[in-house]
Amino acid sequence: MPKKVLIVFAHQSSGSFNAAAKNAAVEVLTAQGCTVEVSELYAMSFKATATAEDIKGDVKNAENFCYLEESKLAWEQGKLSDDITKEQTKLTEADLIIFQFPMYWFSVPAILKGWIDRVLTNGFAFSKEKRYSQGIFKDKKAMLSFTTGSLESMFSPTGINGDMNVTLWPLQNGILHYCGFQVLAPQIFWAPSSAAAEDRKSMLDSWRTRLQGLLEEKPLSFIPLDCFDEKAFQLKPDVHEKHSSQEFGLTVGIHLNKPLPPHSQMKAGC
Amino acid sequence: MPKKVLIVFAHQSSGSFNAAAKNAAVEVLTAQGCTVEVSELYAMSFKATATAEDIKGDVKNAENFCYLEESKLAWEQGKLSDDITKEQTKLTEADLIIFQFPMYWFSVPAILKGWIDRVLTNGFAFSKEKRYSQGIFKDKKAMLSFTTGSLESMFSPTGINGDMNVTLWPLQNGILHYCGFQVLAPQIFWAPSSAAAEDRKSMLDSWRTRLQGLLEEKPLSFIPLDCFDEKAFQLKPDVHEKHSSQEFGLTVGIHLNKPLPPHSQMKAGC
Repeated sequence: MPKKVLIVFAHQSSGSFNAAAKNAAVEVLTAQGCTVEVSELYAMSFKATATAEDIKGDVKNAENFCYLEESKLAWEQGKLSDDITKEQTKLTEADLIIFQFPMYWFSVPAILKGWIDRVLTNGFAFSKEKRYSQGIFKDKKAMLSFTTGSLESMFSPTGINGDMNVTLWPLQNGILHYCGFQVLAPQIFWAPSSAAAEDRKSMLDSWRTRLQGLLEEKPLSFIPLDCFDEKAFQLKPDVHEKHSSQEFGLTVGIHLNKPLPPHSQMKAGC
Repeated sequence: MPKKVLIVFAHQSSGSFNAAAKNAAVEVLTAQGCTVEVSELYAMSFKATATAEDIKGDVKNAENFCYLEESKLAWEQGKLSDDITKEQTKLTEADLIIFQFPMYWFSVPAILKGWIDRVLTNGFAFSKEKRYSQGIFKDKKAMLSFTTGSLESMFSPTGINGDMNVTLWPLQNGILHYCGFQVLAPQIFWAPSSAAAEDRKSMLDSWRTRLQGLLEEKPLSFIPLDCFDEKAFQLKPDVHEKHSSQEFGLTVGIHLNKPLPPHSQMKAGC
């Protein structure tokens, strides 16, 4: 069956390197028979802020408004605003989501954070029972594809920005894997704005090559939910013990007083 | 001289725990003789998205709009939009900035990310020469004060969300310290919405106690800029060597193939 891909695109300009990366994805994936949908957040003037206006009609507790609870209720009752519902429908239909953006301040731009805050509604995208490896979107794949302003050396474990694996953890574990997505290795375009035209072209060429086999790629490894107890969500003693003779910690987040496993947020099979 | 404090507040509701934490800060710091200004982002309907409308008049390159460059130019020419300029003036005058927010998706809510993306303009808040320990705001302090939905155990180095130190790195190193701020230890209110009223009260009491001495607190440690070379921004070999016999890495980001230093993003003196 042909696959459906959703690209959530967060750059202001159609002349940007990010736009070229997005266009390459549309082109290569479409040529493979995929249906590709693009949410162009700036062109859509996508609302970034999570407010009571996201809920049609009255909220439950206006005095002490809690977005997490109110949006859950609105989702259950079909009362979420149309712009959110539309994105949720796209997400439900997609087999793979690609987030294409320029890294702003070690994270996603606010407009994309707004998509995450508003579209990944409590109940729709996760629940207390359904998260991480048991997450709602465990049959879907997702990945980050982004440009940096900094050189690659600055984001190494001995570079001034620190290890890129650390910076990716809150995004890849805390958002994507939290909702259950199988997370494909990120596509990082290192500092294209400081690169020569020829190097920018070769970055895009290598992205095109990767896109050919993207849907068959193995995802990054995360620790299965059942390795944690159900009350405090702490690693079970037997997993801890089984890992005690290993050289590296389990992940960037769960390091067991050991060195971090190199590249765990950057390459599959780490 | 009396100190000036800016609180950047990002919760929708004046009845929330976050509002109570913000009010406690206003009250205790004012009682100490500080002048406290609050930017209530939701009440201000603060624009979160970084667009060409942030620049008065024509942009330099509309075809290939680059926010980082265009906003730098607009700042130099006094052409940034009034809402940005107003926040920049508040920031310039402040000795301490407190960011008060509920953690959304392992990070700040989009409206606060928008404040960061738009107010910390290239040139105003950092430059290639002036960043990290040589950063523009090195005589100012800043801190995160936030609520979580997750329990503290879930954000431990053996918990399912991973080590909170890892999650804080992009925010504290990548934003605050990048601009030069001396970063005070974060104030973390663990899952107040799941806590008993009595426990919520004691969280606020302990915040009030901390606020009494907040301005005298020592900041978190980060590695000085001159420990890195000036080209690739890699740790200099002598620093690397000097640290080779130590038990832990230097920071969460720069770990030298060693275990992470515990609490480096949570407590001063680590």
